[in-house]
Amino acid sequence: MYKQRGLLIVLSGPSGVGKGTVRKELFQQPDTNYEYSISMTTRSPREGEQDGVDYFFKSRSDFERLISEGKLLEYAEYVGNYYGTPLDYVNETLDAGRDVFLEIEVVGAAQVREKVPDGLFIFLAPPSLSELEDRLVGRGTEKADVIASRVLKARDELEMMNLYDYVVENDEVSKACDRINAIVTAEHCRRERVEKRYLLMLEGE
Amino acid sequence: MYKQRGLLIVLSGPSGVGKGTVRKELFQQPDTNYEYSISMTTRSPREGEQDGVDYFFKSRSDFERLISEGKLLEYAEYVGNYYGTPLDYVNETLDAGRDVFLEIEVVGAAQVREKVPDGLFIFLAPPSLSELEDRLVGRGTEKADVIASRVLKARDELEMMNLYDYVVENDEVSKACDRINAIVTAEHCRRERVEKRYLLMLEGE
Repeated sequence: MYKQRGLLIVLSGPSGVGKGTVRKELFQQPDTNYEYSISMTTRSPREGEQDGVDYFFKSRSDFERLISEGKLLEYAEYVGNYYGTPLDYVNETLDAGRDVFLEIEVVGAAQVREKVPDGLFIFLAPPSLSELEDRLVGRGTEKADVIASRVLKARDELEMMNLYDYVVENDEVSKACDRINAIVTAEHCRRERVEKRYLLMLEGE
Repeated sequence: MYKQRGLLIVLSGPSGVGKGTVRKELFQQPDTNYEYSISMTTRSPREGEQDGVDYFFKSRSDFERLISEGKLLEYAEYVGNYYGTPLDYVNETLDAGRDVFLEIEVVGAAQVREKVPDGLFIFLAPPSLSELEDRLVGRGTEKADVIASRVLKARDELEMMNLYDYVVENDEVSKACDRINAIVTAEHCRRERVEKRYLLMLEGE
C-alpha cells in the first residue's frame, strides 16, 4: 500500500509574540487534525507540569547523549537549559501519514528548515507591522524618532521572516489560529501534493 | 501611497464538475472578500437572466470587435456562442487592491495562465479520484474493465490539473467552498506577499 507522508508544520516567531498561546488555542479546538510534538527539556518541571504532557523532562547528561546520538531534530540552550525536539516521534508520525506541529524558537526553526526543507514554516508576527502601517498612513501625528525606531524594528522582523513560507499576524489569537488552519488546509490542496497522492495510487495498482 | 495589487483567483475544472454551483455558493456567503468577474457572451439571455448581473450580453459583431481590440482576458466558443472575460474590469479591480474571482472553462484558464502567471489557479476535481482510491483499496469487488476505465479517466484528470496551483475536490459544495476560502486566506499570508507589502510601506516612508 502507498502512503503519503504527513506535513511537518513549524510555528515560530520572535520571543514574546505569543507562540505558546496560539499553539494552546489550536490544540484546544476539537477538530485539530495534527499531532503536537512535545519538546524535551533539562529545566525542572514547574507546578502542575507533567512529564510527557507539557515536556519530556530529561537530565542534562541524558539530553547531551541524545544530541550526540543525533536524536534531536533541533535543539538550543536558553538560560542554562536545553530545549529540543525528539526526532523519532516526528518521523514515526509523519511516516504514518499524519501532520506534526512544532512550536519552537527561531534558532530551532532555522535548524529544521535545513533538515526538512519541504516542511511548512509559519512565522507568527507581532501586530507592530500593521500598526506601523497605520501610523505611516496617519502621518504627522507621531514624533520622527518614534517612527524611526519602529521602522528599524520592522526591518529586523522582515529579515527574520526570510526563511518562512507564511507570515501570520498575531493581532488576535483566534484570528491567528484561523489563518494557521487555513494554511494547513490549503497546503493539503496543493496540486503537487494531490497529484503525487494519485500517482502513487495509480502506480500501486 | 503604495498599493498592492489584488489576487486573480481562477476556478476551473472539467465540464459537469459543478463550478457554477460552487461559485454561486461562494458569493452567497456574507463574508466573501473578492469580486466576481461577470462573463460576456453572445448567447441570448435565458428566462430571468439580467444583463450586467448574470452576463454581459453582446452581439456577435460587438464581441468580435472586442476580441480584435484585445479587450478580453480569455474567450472561447461553445456550441456557436462566444463566452469571455472583459479585461478592463479585471485590471481596474486588481489595481484597486481587490481580489477578482473568475469561474471559467479549462480552455480559458489556460489562456489566463499565460497572461497572468502569478494568478491563483484552482482546479475543481470530481470526487471520482477519491472514489477510485476507495475502490482500489477495497480490491476485488469490481470487474477489471470497470477499474481499467476509471483508471484511464483518472489519468486524464491528472493531466488536466497540470497548470493549476491547487486541486479542490468537489465532494460536497460547502466543503469545496471552505477549501477555496482557506486557499485564498493562505495566499494572502504567503511570506513573499506580506514581505512585499511591508517593503513597499517602508520604501514609501
